[in-house]
Amino acid sequence: MDGKAADIGITVGKDEDFPEWYTQLVVKARIADYSSVKGFMVLMPYGYAIWEMIRVSLDAKLREKGHRNAYFPLLIPEGLLRKEAEHFKGFVPEVFWVTHSGDSPLSERLAVRPTSETIIYESFSRWIKSWRDLPLLLNVWNSVLRAEIKSTKPFIRTSEFLWQEGHTAHASKEEADKEVLDILRLYERFIEEELAIPVVSGYKSEREKFVGALYTTTLEAVMPDGKALQMGTSHNLGQNFSKPFEIKYLGRDEKEHYVWTTSWGVSWRLIGALLMVHGDDKGAIIPPRIAPIQAVIVPIAYSEEQRGMVLAASREVEALLKGEGIRVELDDRTQYTPGWKFNDWEMKGVPVRIEIGPRDLEKGEVTIARRDTGKRLHVKRDILAAELHRVMSEIQGNLFERAKKLLESHTSTARDYGEFVEILREKGGFVKAYWCGGGECEEAIKMETGATIRAIPFEAEDPVGSCIYCGGEAEKMVYFAKAY
Amino acid sequence: MDGKAADIGITVGKDEDFPEWYTQLVVKARIADYSSVKGFMVLMPYGYAIWEMIRVSLDAKLREKGHRNAYFPLLIPEGLLRKEAEHFKGFVPEVFWVTHSGDSPLSERLAVRPTSETIIYESFSRWIKSWRDLPLLLNVWNSVLRAEIKSTKPFIRTSEFLWQEGHTAHASKEEADKEVLDILRLYERFIEEELAIPVVSGYKSEREKFVGALYTTTLEAVMPDGKALQMGTSHNLGQNFSKPFEIKYLGRDEKEHYVWTTSWGVSWRLIGALLMVHGDDKGAIIPPRIAPIQAVIVPIAYSEEQRGMVLAASREVEALLKGEGIRVELDDRTQYTPGWKFNDWEMKGVPVRIEIGPRDLEKGEVTIARRDTGKRLHVKRDILAAELHRVMSEIQGNLFERAKKLLESHTSTARDYGEFVEILREKGGFVKAYWCGGGECEEAIKMETGATIRAIPFEAEDPVGSCIYCGGEAEKMVYFAKAY
Repeated sequence: MDGKAADIGITVGKDEDFPEWYTQLVVKARIADYSSVKGFMVLMPYGYAIWEMIRVSLDAKLREKGHRNAYFPLLIPEGLLRKEAEHFKGFVPEVFWVTHSGDSPLSERLAVRPTSETIIYESFSRWIKSWRDLPLLLNVWNSVLRAEIKSTKPFIRTSEFLWQEGHTAHASKEEADKEVLDILRLYERFIEEELAIPVVSGYKSEREKFVGALYTTTLEAVMPDGKALQMGTSHNLGQNFSKPFEIKYLGRDEKEHYVWTTSWGVSWRLIGALLMVHGDDKGAIIPPRIAPIQAVIVPIAYSEEQRGMVLAASREVEALLKGEGIRVELDDRTQYTPGWKFNDWEMKGVPVRIEIGPRDLEKGEVTIARRDTGKRLHVKRDILAAELHRVMSEIQGNLFERAKKLLESHTSTARDYGEFVEILREKGGFVKAYWCGGGECEEAIKMETGATIRAIPFEAEDPVGSCIYCGGEAEKMVYFAKAY
Repeated sequence: MDGKAADIGITVGKDEDFPEWYTQLVVKARIADYSSVKGFMVLMPYGYAIWEMIRVSLDAKLREKGHRNAYFPLLIPEGLLRKEAEHFKGFVPEVFWVTHSGDSPLSERLAVRPTSETIIYESFSRWIKSWRDLPLLLNVWNSVLRAEIKSTKPFIRTSEFLWQEGHTAHASKEEADKEVLDILRLYERFIEEELAIPVVSGYKSEREKFVGALYTTTLEAVMPDGKALQMGTSHNLGQNFSKPFEIKYLGRDEKEHYVWTTSWGVSWRLIGALLMVHGDDKGAIIPPRIAPIQAVIVPIAYSEEQRGMVLAASREVEALLKGEGIRVELDDRTQYTPGWKFNDWEMKGVPVRIEIGPRDLEKGEVTIARRDTGKRLHVKRDILAAELHRVMSEIQGNLFERAKKLLESHTSTARDYGEFVEILREKGGFVKAYWCGGGECEEAIKMETGATIRAIPFEAEDPVGSCIYCGGEAEKMVYFAKAY
């Protein structure tokens, strides 16, 4: 697996050919690889390690909020998927259908889950009897399949993806509303504080909401090519599912009520986002808080004699830093030169490199190099751990600041439709504009410019204005963008 | 989810109707539930928590050995699955086939993975170029589907199961041999030391080996009904896959060689085994080392005034024990009585119950109750953590000793075929008998008695003898049993 790929860096600049840069980065950093099934991706060990960091971090936050993990069947009978009509209509074009088991045709087609609402609600209807059983707060880590007919892109657009899907049932709309927003805020903090990517939040329009939802809330980020990327969504499904699935509870009032349900999820798409936003021409840059390897030690020796000493010192440093809770790796491979290793770890985006050579040893120092700025520092070994914590915190902050500038420089306000069209054509990004709330204007804007409404802010920041398309009254400016 | 089920205990004795006892246990302890898809099971939060304990523990052991996690596509093109002929023939009757995506028929059928050798080797052939890339040590946590046509049983026989599948590539047969045994020993230690279930280890016969393997090694346990249960397997696949998949490396000798591959796995079946082996008429008994909840605190109060004091004390004890690394839960639900809670946690098999009532408070004590023996002890609060560690260690040991007696009392030696048949009919369990190594004798014995060879010990414990069936020369006594 440590083949020749990393010898050759990414052959195009990030600013020069962004899609090609991204594809090369994913493969050359050995984060993911293509598979022999069109649209399906292999998550390689380093990519999986990033996903595990995301999973462990989010999982702990959800657990603390009282959510519990479970696992539900991969295959969903067609009849179950059909129970909520809008939901079925929305997903059916993307469903992979199992029709045979061995040589035998099945009596009913089974859908490979595109999402698990229906199969989970079938259980909810048996598990929930009384107000005592509410709220029911579940989460599932699994993979789902949605056939991508358009061109695919690693992490961003694949026919199978790893994700978590949360599913909850509540006694009232108010409790479901609160859950939806609590989760969105939890995602937002995670994405901003750990992935170092600022997001815009708000409601989806009727046209863009989850099929079967009462309403959808969303987090949207902007990528360096000016396209928006949906980072996570949280839906209030109202009683749209509890009614066909007969999920009822006996209230304290001794009467039967339908529950209110929510669902929400984030996927491995988050990995795609952090690669796109933070990476540079040398490869990935993984924010320290989420990096599976925060620092890599590269020993440097010019003779066999030096090698022994340098390696011993490197092992000491490794043990010291592990003891300080730093996720460190010692690259003691003998078949590669230090220069090759530098390139390899830069490609992988490890935030800090620690070089230990004979001169460093003499001075009781090590040399550290920051992945984000390339700056090198000589640090006394006895203050190394503290210094690393400080540097990593700086890198985390710097990456967020850079990403914030990206978002700011890609957020415009259009006063009229001419300007709106021009901004989208010239620089892309988010364009804030007044919208009357009408589906027809939304549809026409999409047809004419390719831009969709990414988010309707929760609070109006602006006075009332006129719809950019029809001139009708508009309560809010909303975020438009072309999106992945 | 906390419905009425636990109010009613298991209605049959474990000794009276074992299959019914097991099924009731799984559902009433809310470990798993049936789904609307025949043969597919829902893993409920408490069951998932047990699986997470297994996963975290095994994952750390594999990581320490140098294995890395990855994720491979769920769907495998038929052509890829066909590449190793025996493998395909073995799995094809159990494969769920995807034939359509949306409304469109696929040009090639896709198998929902029954195991991932083929899809993984397709990547190995691209990733492995040189001896520097070896050994390649991967592991995957996923679910696989194998259609069960026979009657299903939660955890033991389901059409979908959660498992881990390890896949490695090595430069030589010797290295692959070592890997196979290292992993088997790792599994064995885990199963005996953490799940408290003693196992028999050895080779599978040609008839029973993994389809496509050079040879298979196995761990087998005996269940209380006398049936054997395969707990884990580790296969040396030789070059059977590397040849059709063209997985070659350039050796230090500058020549091309095919790699040697291994695969190995354990599944959620381990949960079924621990429920069957350790459970009693009151429910599950989860060994402390693997229990997601090691101790549950049940506050007992007879008045509102007492309730406040008792709850405050319970919270203190909870914090104290958490600080000592004990996985403790405080059951402060107000809608249930202490008696109901006792039954509920006994059903779930939490190893230790801690009762805190007004009398305990006065004496600075708590009352602890062991799930395995039911014995109750009064313990001073200042030595509680140490005492719990001692008691849990005793429970772990006691469960293993009980399971060892179960294995010993269900292991017999048959000197002739008459005795062999009688033992299998009367008491079941493992029957050790001489076997000539011939497939015909093995087949005949299976036809006549239903017993298969579960394991051929690695080392002969016995002098050479005569095959129990044909009388031919036999080098070893092997373990026969009827199996799940």
